[in-house]
Amino acid sequence: MTELNQQVRLAKRPEGMPEDDTWTIKQEPMMEPGDGEFLVRVEYISLDPAMRGWLRDVRSYIPPVQIDEVMRGGAVGEIIKSNNAKFPIGAKVQGIFGVQQYAVSDGQSVTIVDDSVAELPLYLATLGMPGMTAYFGLLDVGQPVAGETVVVSAASGAVGQVVGQIAKIKGCRVVGIAGGPEKCRWVVDDLGFDACIDYKNESVAEGLKTHCPDRINVYFDNVGGDILDDVLARLAMKARIVVCGAISQYNNTGPITGPSNYLNLLVSRGRMEGMVVFDYVKQYRDAAVEMAGWMAEGQLKYRLDIVEGLENFPVTLRKLFTGENFGKLILKV
Amino acid sequence: MTELNQQVRLAKRPEGMPEDDTWTIKQEPMMEPGDGEFLVRVEYISLDPAMRGWLRDVRSYIPPVQIDEVMRGGAVGEIIKSNNAKFPIGAKVQGIFGVQQYAVSDGQSVTIVDDSVAELPLYLATLGMPGMTAYFGLLDVGQPVAGETVVVSAASGAVGQVVGQIAKIKGCRVVGIAGGPEKCRWVVDDLGFDACIDYKNESVAEGLKTHCPDRINVYFDNVGGDILDDVLARLAMKARIVVCGAISQYNNTGPITGPSNYLNLLVSRGRMEGMVVFDYVKQYRDAAVEMAGWMAEGQLKYRLDIVEGLENFPVTLRKLFTGENFGKLILKV
Repeated sequence: MTELNQQVRLAKRPEGMPEDDTWTIKQEPMMEPGDGEFLVRVEYISLDPAMRGWLRDVRSYIPPVQIDEVMRGGAVGEIIKSNNAKFPIGAKVQGIFGVQQYAVSDGQSVTIVDDSVAELPLYLATLGMPGMTAYFGLLDVGQPVAGETVVVSAASGAVGQVVGQIAKIKGCRVVGIAGGPEKCRWVVDDLGFDACIDYKNESVAEGLKTHCPDRINVYFDNVGGDILDDVLARLAMKARIVVCGAISQYNNTGPITGPSNYLNLLVSRGRMEGMVVFDYVKQYRDAAVEMAGWMAEGQLKYRLDIVEGLENFPVTLRKLFTGENFGKLILKV
Repeated sequence: MTELNQQVRLAKRPEGMPEDDTWTIKQEPMMEPGDGEFLVRVEYISLDPAMRGWLRDVRSYIPPVQIDEVMRGGAVGEIIKSNNAKFPIGAKVQGIFGVQQYAVSDGQSVTIVDDSVAELPLYLATLGMPGMTAYFGLLDVGQPVAGETVVVSAASGAVGQVVGQIAKIKGCRVVGIAGGPEKCRWVVDDLGFDACIDYKNESVAEGLKTHCPDRINVYFDNVGGDILDDVLARLAMKARIVVCGAISQYNNTGPITGPSNYLNLLVSRGRMEGMVVFDYVKQYRDAAVEMAGWMAEGQLKYRLDIVEGLENFPVTLRKLFTGENFGKLILKV
C-alpha cells in the first residue's frame, strides 16, 4: 500500500475572507525524493497574515500561489528519506514545505535546526520568519534609539511580541496595541511593555495621547487602517514607520483604505518604509544567535497558539484575521 | 497726510476653496520702524500652495494665520526707512513680509538680495523658497543617482520645474506630470525633461508605463491624490517618494484621501518621506550659489507668472488650485 500525503491546495481565489471553499483537502500518493533530494515529514506549519497576500493574483515580492497548487507555508519537520548528504535522515529542518504532511525538497532555502536549543515550533516563531521580520524591521528600518517611544500594533502576535521585547532590550518606551484585555495584560505583565491599548474597547487616539507623552518615534505597523491614521496623527519629529503589513485590509473586497493622515509625514519630517524579511536571509543566523541569547537570559519570551490537524487549516487561518488567535498561530500536523 | 498701507487680512477660515469672503482688503496707516527695525516697500509677493495650509487651524510645522491677521507671505522689496545698520535704505530684501504694501521688520529671517545677479522676483522662485524646496527635497530626501528615473508632479510649477531640471543635471531620466499640452510641451522642449504626461488629457498610469520602462526610482510629490497612487503602483525597488505637498487635497472639505496603494512601499522596499524647507535654512546660501551657477550656464531655466495688484490676491491665489497659473505665480504690488 502506497503511503498517502494529505495536502491543502488552492481551489479558487477568495474574495474577501478565505472561506472553506477556497481550499481542497486532498490525499495524494507520497512522492519519492529524486537525486539530491530528501523527504520531510512535516510536523508544524506556520500560519501567517502574509498567506492572504500569496492568494492574490498580482505582482508582489513573491509569485502568487496558483490554482490547484499546494498552499505555500513555512514549516518544520524531520527528514525521513534522503539522497542528499547535507540533509541526513533524522535531521530537523525548517523551510517552505507547504501545507501538507510530506514534502520533497532539494535543500534550497532549507535550514537544519537544533531542537535541543529550542522546541521545534519556535523555529516558526521567534527564531523563524516572524522573529526575523521583527528583528530586521525594527532594528534596520525603524532604527530605535534608547529613550525613544516605540509603538507596535498586533502586539501579542507573532511579530509584535518580538518587536516590543527587542525595543525594551534597546532601552525604549514600548506601547502595544492589541485586541482585548487578556492580550493587553499579557504584553504588559509578562513581556514588560510599558503600556498596551485595547483597540476593541478603547479609543486608540486617546490611548496614544495618554501613553506616548513625547509622541511616537517608531511605529511598527502590522495592521494598517484606522490605527495607522491614529499613529500618524501623533508622530514625533523624524519618526519612522515600518510598513510590515496591513492585516486590517487584507480581506477587503474593494481597494485598500490608504492612510488619510499621511501628510503628517511632512509636518514631522517622518518616513514610512516598507520591508520584506527575505532581503535579510544572509543575516538570519546571526540574528537567531542573538535572539536565542536573549531567550536564555529571560529577556525574550514567547507565546505560541498551536492548533492540531492539517484539516483544520481553513478555519484556523481565519482566526488570524478575526484576531481570535493569541500568540503565534501554528498548525500541528 | 499719513501714507496708507494696503493689506490683505484673513476675515474667516475657508471651507474648501478660499473664496473672496475669506479676505478683507484694508487700508491701514503705514507703521514707522522702531529701534533696530526698518520699513520695506514690498514689490513682489509669492503665492504658494502652502498658504492654504496656513489657513487651517491645526498643529503644523508653523502656526496658522489668525483671524484678522495680515496674511502670511514671502516677498521681496526695498528698504525705504531704517534704524538698523545691517539693513540700510535702498537694500533689496527677501523675507516673510506678508500680503501688504509695506512691512516693518527687525531683520529676523530676512536676507539682502542682489538684483544685479537675478531679477528681483526670482528670489521668490528658483532662488527662493520653491527653489530651495526643490533642491533639498530632491537631493537630500530623494537622493537621485545618475541613470535613475525621477518623476515630478506639478512639473511646470514653481517647485516642479526646478526639481526636474536639477534631476536632469544629475543625469537622471526625468518624467513630468502637468495639466495641459502647453505646460507639457514647455517642460520637454524648453526645460529638457525626457517626457511629460498631461494628466488632464491622458491616463497617468498608462503614461508612467510608457515613459518609465524601468519603473520609478524617485517621485517628488506636489499633488497627492490619484496621481500618487498611480506612481505607487509603478515603483522600482528601494524607491524614494518625497512628500512635499498634496495640492489636489488642500481644499477638501472632508478628510484627505490617503494613498490606497501605499502597501507597494512594502513590495518595493520603498519609502515615503516628508520634508519642510525651513530645516535647511543654514544651507540656503550655498544652494543659491550653485543654482545661480546653473542658471548662468543655461542649465536651469525658469518661468514666472506675474499678476499685478494686491487687490487681485484672492482671485490669483485660486489659480494655483485650479492649475490656471503657468509657472511660478507672483503678485506684483
